[in-house]
Amino acid sequence: MQELRKDPVIGRWVIISTERALRPQDYLVDKEISVTDKTHCPFEPGNEKMTPHEVLSYRLPATNKNEPGWWVRVIPNKYPVLRVEGNFNKRGVGMYDQMNGVGAHEIVIESPSHSDEMSNMDEKQIEEIIWAWRDRLLDLSKDKRFKYILIFKNKGSQAGASLEHPHSQIIALPIIPIRVTQELSGAKQYYEYKDRCVFCDIVLQELDERERLVEENGEFISLVPFAPRFPFEISILPKKHESHFPEITRSEVVSLAKVLKKTLLRLKNALNDPPYNLIIHTSPIMEPLLSYYHWHIELMPRITKVAGFEWGSGIYINPTIPEDAASFLREIEL
Amino acid sequence: MQELRKDPVIGRWVIISTERALRPQDYLVDKEISVTDKTHCPFEPGNEKMTPHEVLSYRLPATNKNEPGWWVRVIPNKYPVLRVEGNFNKRGVGMYDQMNGVGAHEIVIESPSHSDEMSNMDEKQIEEIIWAWRDRLLDLSKDKRFKYILIFKNKGSQAGASLEHPHSQIIALPIIPIRVTQELSGAKQYYEYKDRCVFCDIVLQELDERERLVEENGEFISLVPFAPRFPFEISILPKKHESHFPEITRSEVVSLAKVLKKTLLRLKNALNDPPYNLIIHTSPIMEPLLSYYHWHIELMPRITKVAGFEWGSGIYINPTIPEDAASFLREIEL
Repeated sequence: MQELRKDPVIGRWVIISTERALRPQDYLVDKEISVTDKTHCPFEPGNEKMTPHEVLSYRLPATNKNEPGWWVRVIPNKYPVLRVEGNFNKRGVGMYDQMNGVGAHEIVIESPSHSDEMSNMDEKQIEEIIWAWRDRLLDLSKDKRFKYILIFKNKGSQAGASLEHPHSQIIALPIIPIRVTQELSGAKQYYEYKDRCVFCDIVLQELDERERLVEENGEFISLVPFAPRFPFEISILPKKHESHFPEITRSEVVSLAKVLKKTLLRLKNALNDPPYNLIIHTSPIMEPLLSYYHWHIELMPRITKVAGFEWGSGIYINPTIPEDAASFLREIEL
Repeated sequence: MQELRKDPVIGRWVIISTERALRPQDYLVDKEISVTDKTHCPFEPGNEKMTPHEVLSYRLPATNKNEPGWWVRVIPNKYPVLRVEGNFNKRGVGMYDQMNGVGAHEIVIESPSHSDEMSNMDEKQIEEIIWAWRDRLLDLSKDKRFKYILIFKNKGSQAGASLEHPHSQIIALPIIPIRVTQELSGAKQYYEYKDRCVFCDIVLQELDERERLVEENGEFISLVPFAPRFPFEISILPKKHESHFPEITRSEVVSLAKVLKKTLLRLKNALNDPPYNLIIHTSPIMEPLLSYYHWHIELMPRITKVAGFEWGSGIYINPTIPEDAASFLREIEL
């Protein structure tokens, strides 16, 4: 069962997905990373038959699909939270709203090497991952049922990863998620008032003040935001105004790989290889080019717990001064 | 340092509070509940001197403040996330907005007994806790600097509790939290369209369908919401329209204590004493009586992890069908 249901008060959709159905007793055991053993890892070269057929791979010439020879491989998730097949069947249940869980859920296997991780990869390999994200986003965008495509990565079991082999995920959604709507609407409000992109203004002020900067090169900056929810939270932004991630240029891919690698390495060394979530925030498929929105990456080490106050208020308590976090990260020797 | 900073895109405030300042290396150790030993517990009768002076206690006649003899005791938090003293000093920092972290942060010690917990308490004791929540909310409401008062409880270290002794918390805020604004605005939109309170409609539909009900008595119901973010998430609502928690009647306090106790006991038995967050959602201080809003309690067992998809989209993936969760809870023998 894959179903989208809408909260009648907040308007937030949730996905009820029993693909990895859990009975109450299953919650009693803390689920840690399940496959650390290479021979049983479905993402290992040689184990391609353990996964659904690949939808994309970058591979050596004269090697076959679903066989070794790839350096990046994208597959449909074997346990998708949404299903590609079927129609929405939007319907009411009394006062409530629901629709079938139609969408796509793919896995980007980021490296053939089980123990690889983005902070230690060659920059070239990170570039390949970025290209794979882009290729899949563009391909999924052709399906007119989808309204938004979210690219994200969970690293470490505390961040929600269930497999150790380096991978990221892509979920194509039939709705624009509430978090994206809020960001678009805030950015639009700022633009209407100031006639400038709020993210472009952030880039300018941060480059001027420099106290929250973590990494910088010609085309990208990474920084600790002025009002971060979590200690050592990071934003990575293109310096140039660009609303849609797939518009990224060839030279920007090279720059982003460098900034991403260095930022991840700083976090790794500062916080003893923390679990983290990485999320690409980009404009919706149908309205890709927006003057008020600016695509960016959100990177959140998962080192504190979210408690009742945060859930109840939406206000986060951050015990680390952002300027201190940035200065600490800058001082890490690479 | 206690500072409120506003995210310039989303408009979400965060609290930068270094009262429990953490240096980067402090994050390397997973912080579990720190005091399980009764003799060092500041909430234990006899240890009253270890805490700030009490602001409220329900105690035996002829016993002194800040001495044993109480059954519920409310104290300012020794490590408050916001400070009662001072003024806001609202100011801009370039494009950013900030103000001083002015507010109140109190602890409700829910029982003299260290190993007590709400699901096992006498209903009478739970009533006393509800009265203490109400008394403090009314008293804090007199301070014109505060716009919203959030009452919540973190139980278990995975839910963010740092002390084992049963307690809840009250935070008075100089702003209306974003989560509350979203709920108010969603409820208002529904009211404007339907001329009915969305929560009253929920109560009616749930009482009619019954498949998501968990507990019910004359004045309250507890249920698994139609679109819950988490498995076994619960809403508790007064059946009668009431927007402001302090308007609760004497007989409703008795009913709420019963429903709360039974619901907590069902969760405890179903999920092996899970960590949880409990939050009271009520109308803002300045606009207490609203025809479109209905106060309620949100109860969230913390048994799944929030990962990149949820943070990036605001859409939650729930692996348990709400109707199954409710039926499982109903079948627990008490």
